[in-house]
Amino acid sequence: MTKVAILGASGRMGRTLIGLVAAADDLQLVGATTRADSPSVGSDAGLLAGCGALDVTLTASAEAALADADVAIDFTLPAALADNLTAARSRGCALVIGTTGVDADGIQAIDATARRLPVVFAANYSSGVTLLQRLVRTAAAALGSDYDVEIVEAHHRGKRDAPSGTARALGQSVADGRGVDLEENAVYAREGMTGERPVGAIGFQALRGGDIVGEHTVMLAGEGERLELTHRAASRETFARGALRAARWVISQPPGRFDMDDVLGLSD
Amino acid sequence: MTKVAILGASGRMGRTLIGLVAAADDLQLVGATTRADSPSVGSDAGLLAGCGALDVTLTASAEAALADADVAIDFTLPAALADNLTAARSRGCALVIGTTGVDADGIQAIDATARRLPVVFAANYSSGVTLLQRLVRTAAAALGSDYDVEIVEAHHRGKRDAPSGTARALGQSVADGRGVDLEENAVYAREGMTGERPVGAIGFQALRGGDIVGEHTVMLAGEGERLELTHRAASRETFARGALRAARWVISQPPGRFDMDDVLGLSD
Amino acid sequence: MTKVAILGASGRMGRTLIGLVAAADDLQLVGATTRADSPSVGSDAGLLAGCGALDVTLTASAEAALADADVAIDFTLPAALADNLTAARSRGCALVIGTTGVDADGIQAIDATARRLPVVFAANYSSGVTLLQRLVRTAAAALGSDYDVEIVEAHHRGKRDAPSGTARALGQSVADGRGVDLEENAVYAREGMTGERPVGAIGFQALRGGDIVGEHTVMLAGEGERLELTHRAASRETFARGALRAARWVISQPPGRFDMDDVLGLSD
Amino acid sequence: MTKVAILGASGRMGRTLIGLVAAADDLQLVGATTRADSPSVGSDAGLLAGCGALDVTLTASAEAALADADVAIDFTLPAALADNLTAARSRGCALVIGTTGVDADGIQAIDATARRLPVVFAANYSSGVTLLQRLVRTAAAALGSDYDVEIVEAHHRGKRDAPSGTARALGQSVADGRGVDLEENAVYAREGMTGERPVGAIGFQALRGGDIVGEHTVMLAGEGERLELTHRAASRETFARGALRAARWVISQPPGRFDMDDVLGLSD
Repeated sequence: MTKVAILGASGRMGRTLIGLVAAADDLQLVGATTRADSPSVGSDAGLLAGCGALDVTLTASAEAALADADVAIDFTLPAALADNLTAARSRGCALVIGTTGVDADGIQAIDATARRLPVVFAANYSSGVTLLQRLVRTAAAALGSDYDVEIVEAHHRGKRDAPSGTARALGQSVADGRGVDLEENAVYAREGMTGERPVGAIGFQALRGGDIVGEHTVMLAGEGERLELTHRAASRETFARGALRAARWVISQPPGRFDMDDVLGLSD
Repeated sequence: MTKVAILGASGRMGRTLIGLVAAADDLQLVGATTRADSPSVGSDAGLLAGCGALDVTLTASAEAALADADVAIDFTLPAALADNLTAARSRGCALVIGTTGVDADGIQAIDATARRLPVVFAANYSSGVTLLQRLVRTAAAALGSDYDVEIVEAHHRGKRDAPSGTARALGQSVADGRGVDLEENAVYAREGMTGERPVGAIGFQALRGGDIVGEHTVMLAGEGERLELTHRAASRETFARGALRAARWVISQPPGRFDMDDVLGLSD
Repeated sequence: MTKVAILGASGRMGRTLIGLVAAADDLQLVGATTRADSPSVGSDAGLLAGCGALDVTLTASAEAALADADVAIDFTLPAALADNLTAARSRGCALVIGTTGVDADGIQAIDATARRLPVVFAANYSSGVTLLQRLVRTAAAALGSDYDVEIVEAHHRGKRDAPSGTARALGQSVADGRGVDLEENAVYAREGMTGERPVGAIGFQALRGGDIVGEHTVMLAGEGERLELTHRAASRETFARGALRAARWVISQPPGRFDMDDVLGLSD
Repeated sequence: MTKVAILGASGRMGRTLIGLVAAADDLQLVGATTRADSPSVGSDAGLLAGCGALDVTLTASAEAALADADVAIDFTLPAALADNLTAARSRGCALVIGTTGVDADGIQAIDATARRLPVVFAANYSSGVTLLQRLVRTAAAALGSDYDVEIVEAHHRGKRDAPSGTARALGQSVADGRGVDLEENAVYAREGMTGERPVGAIGFQALRGGDIVGEHTVMLAGEGERLELTHRAASRETFARGALRAARWVISQPPGRFDMDDVLGLSD
């Protein structure tokens, strides 16, 4: 039974993680944090997540939450990162970090921690998206610029930016596979007399509609054939599942910084 | 056996039509025209089309080509239209007109001819595209603006304008179904901080790659469900097949101007 | 403000309906039933649905639940139908019936009620599926048997029968459009030396995997082109939304029995 | 300028290869064979392929055809293989072998030749299909049996067997990635009360319609997300293009037997 602590337990991702840990046979929730000024301090983590009392009380202290943990999953904010890393080092507990917007200092701190503990740090914990990035890089490298690449993403009508971060990451995978610069080749719109498609262009298209969770297709179109590599997310739970997969994996690793490619066994 | 004349027989569409007429059990080629200055004048139409001699010689005279025809299929240029209409009226022969870029005078001339002969005049002779336009109008009317519409088209890398004419026509079908103006609601690009999707927007996305003949998808995305209505053209022959379908249909019609909706039995 | 009663309020569909009614500006919940032996009798409908107290108590009496209702939505079992119909006639309240497995006697009883009240009775309340059936019938009629039809559905790994009822209904739409018998033309499997595809065949393919809610594609493939008409359900809520759309529509109708085609304005 | 000989030049693939070689700037046709009893012996290869005279005469002698070649592309029948291998060894010319149905003796002969010459021998020369097989194996290995796999293929109405050889090969890629046996896990049909999907099943679905050249999708469906990896062939020319890619690559290789994975740089 792996003992898990959730840092940032009162957010949407935190509550989803608690529900999945509670439902898993091989995982046990042993600690949970929230911000010191949160009304959830002192609440039972399970009741908060809507899955029945789990006898784990939300605390503002990462030290306390990690006291008994094999692995901590951190979906907080960059401001909480330093405290969380200190607590993990003090307790000798493996880490899965899903916090976004971490700056250069934060990354340096993560690397310092990773010299003593195994740490997974990834921008996107979806197994499917991680895998798709790898497949796209392989395909772009094998097919070269004779195959035109278009990246199409679709999200719900409320999404306020375009293209999605995942679409940009897939574009980067194409650029990496070809050994070119993404921004020099990216095309974000076509209207009117566009002329012929530039050789090597990487096109982006963003669809918006309904309550679509998130879909991405990378098309590689050559003469007489094409590949279409598609990921469809049907629920946000899939990101939480990926973080738990990373947690199960990281506890048996040596110290070091890993990403989801390592978790999925995709690294070179 | 229906006797068919092809006007504009030396162009790509003309040659495709000759090949399909030659292969059809119920059709016979009896005449074929080309421009007076074309090197093909005097050639055998079948040899030109690569399907074996048909004993029909290309002529610059529409009158001569239509002498024995039940129906003429006209894929020429607007400049040839007046002569072709005159010849059809003189010979009493039904017409299928696929010429594009016809101006208001030309349309008036077609209407005058259609008072005496049955005439099919359509912008796109693909049965599938014609049908898709109708389905899209029905769907947009039934679902209303609660369902967000995105139109995605894909064409070969050499296509020089975007979105395609067919994509615009599908957008018009959406606007007709909703009873709104297309241009007031059309969105052609999304990049950066776009904000939420405007209610009623009709999005267009144009993909370019490889040698894709032409694909169009209309997505209608609501809460918890969506429709995707897709047409895929695999060869340009499909437009010639539609013109022959129109030819077979028009010979048994009374005088009047018809379009592909009528040919397919889709009219209200 | 339309006053709504939910019959069968403690089931999954009933609770979803309560949540959507509570969230709608133009609807008010005024009654809710469950079975006499249900532990939910006497509970607050809103608390049961997880959307906060609504001051409507679950009762086993349809008469009581309908006392103040403009329209009742019935997702119970066939055994409850007779009582529900009697109550609706007694109260003069419009009906939306989503109960499945109704036998011939039940349908006769619905028809008798529909002579005095407006009643919507449909097998599937998804707007998208209802619309797709109509589009498929139109397409099959327009394109004829020269276009080969394949129906592909995908559902979650736990689904125990194949093809889905909706796939069969779509096959019936194809058969209706062509004026042929479905079972004489249905093909459910292909393996080994199948020989050429029979003219007029209607193919069915069932995919099973993950937690897919339900997807259906009807492909009509001709020479050089094809149509693919797809419906994707992302959540079961979409069926509840369709039932509410029917409820809003039926209250302004004259007595009669209607289906979702009527609600969507699709009838001939 | 690479000098190319085409063995089996009068077949459909042979003629397509001749046309592509004639159109390529970096390739020159220097020899072409056909069967001794073929009426094409003595014809000009270019005229046969419909691309204008190339001053290369079809011969029944592989020795003669290879006299001046850097590389030979062999799309003949197994009966011609021994002669072709002998000629290649005698002339020291690299080989690309697309002949299908080669038995164990033939493979032994190919391996013997490959000890002295570089030889590409592949079942399918489509770059896209070769790549897709590799991507599918990677994906199946990374995601494991928690993700349900369904393989869907679509071909023209005249195809007489199901599923396609490529679909089976993709199933093998899944089985290889998972380390399981394909036939123990393959499911070819679902109709009626199927019960829940077996864990680890690899489903196959075959669609038939119109003139579809060939499409394959491998779906990997997990909880809340799925991948769909699709290849679409739009023309048979794509296989000839792949063979020419192999020819350009093989001339700079050391002796050895290679497949399309090697050509595309996909090998481990």
